[in-house]
Amino acid sequence: MPKQSMREALAVARGGVNLAGYDPEDRPLAPSKHNRDLRNDDASLREMQKKLWAEGTAGSERRILLVLQGIDTAGKGGVTKHVVGVFDPIGVQYTGFKAPTKTELRHDFLWRIRKQLPIPGTIGVFDRSHYEDVLIVRVHELVPESEWRKRYELINEFEKELVDGGTTVLKCFLNISFDTQRERLIKRLDRPDKHWKFNPDDLTERGFWNEYQLAYSEMLERCNTEYAPWYIVPSDHKKYRNWAIGELLHETLSELDPQYPNPPLDIPTLKEKLAPPN
Amino acid sequence: MPKQSMREALAVARGGVNLAGYDPEDRPLAPSKHNRDLRNDDASLREMQKKLWAEGTAGSERRILLVLQGIDTAGKGGVTKHVVGVFDPIGVQYTGFKAPTKTELRHDFLWRIRKQLPIPGTIGVFDRSHYEDVLIVRVHELVPESEWRKRYELINEFEKELVDGGTTVLKCFLNISFDTQRERLIKRLDRPDKHWKFNPDDLTERGFWNEYQLAYSEMLERCNTEYAPWYIVPSDHKKYRNWAIGELLHETLSELDPQYPNPPLDIPTLKEKLAPPN
Repeated sequence: MPKQSMREALAVARGGVNLAGYDPEDRPLAPSKHNRDLRNDDASLREMQKKLWAEGTAGSERRILLVLQGIDTAGKGGVTKHVVGVFDPIGVQYTGFKAPTKTELRHDFLWRIRKQLPIPGTIGVFDRSHYEDVLIVRVHELVPESEWRKRYELINEFEKELVDGGTTVLKCFLNISFDTQRERLIKRLDRPDKHWKFNPDDLTERGFWNEYQLAYSEMLERCNTEYAPWYIVPSDHKKYRNWAIGELLHETLSELDPQYPNPPLDIPTLKEKLAPPN
Repeated sequence: MPKQSMREALAVARGGVNLAGYDPEDRPLAPSKHNRDLRNDDASLREMQKKLWAEGTAGSERRILLVLQGIDTAGKGGVTKHVVGVFDPIGVQYTGFKAPTKTELRHDFLWRIRKQLPIPGTIGVFDRSHYEDVLIVRVHELVPESEWRKRYELINEFEKELVDGGTTVLKCFLNISFDTQRERLIKRLDRPDKHWKFNPDDLTERGFWNEYQLAYSEMLERCNTEYAPWYIVPSDHKKYRNWAIGELLHETLSELDPQYPNPPLDIPTLKEKLAPPN
């Protein structure tokens, strides 16, 4: 039997999605229960990124967009630090999306997203994204249902456009349990150096846990396309979460298999021009 | 005698600047000739960056703009990879400025620069910058002298505005010798995995070496302000160059001395709200 890929292991099941069926404590494909065994091949990740970047300088349109979604404390920041952090900053474009500004709200919901799309050769990282427009917007009824409901299809069309333009869209939903969120919020309260991360509004949001689970489930179902599938990353174990996303990136980059451009260079002539004067 | 700081050691001398007086092989403040002794305190850099970022989420306006200038092969990419790469990507905004687009050319030269300015709490990195508008633009006479000459003052005013708004502007000129550039270009020709970096136009630019030295000298003289001084980083030794810039960042961050925000939190009440139901 061929070895299962991380993408297969974390794929969303066909049909209706009920998040209750996805265990946040799972560790699919993990070689063992030992966290120390969970190490990505960072050197290889960096090498492939370098080649992707090199291709981009030579006209390739290929790029990656890593979309991170998940409730507060799910680990979007941790993935950025530990996984995205292995790459050369020259080829990384990180964007954290906050509540939209007044100006952004006067445009359609994809307007501010489009402005942050990664350029060729780079890995764009969206810490929250256009999906907030079917998540927080839905949970708090910031626009009428008739409007947010249209967005699933608009998002699918938008992502199709990205894929057609050379972007590999890698969407990760960081799945944590209600109890894990409690533990992490309490930890923030116990450590003065983490107080700044604590927003009392987070507790209000936590009160909408079930509504968010429902909104995530529908997002995972409606926007799980062939060309831009969702991956559900069990995220109660931080090490596992980071390792799994590193592996998703490794598989994605391996499949893209970027190569150094090989421009036609007249090496002898160029070297002669570079020779020091006699 | 108090220990000299890296900022003092790499400062531009008062009065007229002649780059010929700055040895690209120098290693000021290096503890020895051994490259292995040149290690920044990365943990401390990361910790201070984290605090700077934390401050930014709580309303602080402080941020850093690292400007990297230097002729081709001087090592702007190397600094990005090895020095900027130690930071958490959440707080890094890297921009590589290429030849301006047609649209950008229809605006004033600072228009595209302003769009990439770092937000509070982050470290912005400009790999080339508004200084190209008094460098390549001058060397190739892309605009009349009467126009680029005005830009020194415009740049000084622009940087004053940034500093007044909470940005620490850290400008590094990577100083390499004519011979070192030759060696590095030859290395690119010798290694097939580096061919993509070789642009035959680089040789044309190399032909303007003296004109560039003059343009750099005047930039270093005219835009070396109290509030946004230039540092001349001897860059013939890559390890030294990276270490020196890491030290400049360390000094800058230490002086900013960012602190974790300490929001007023009613911890007992918040913990009670988080308690699991009985």
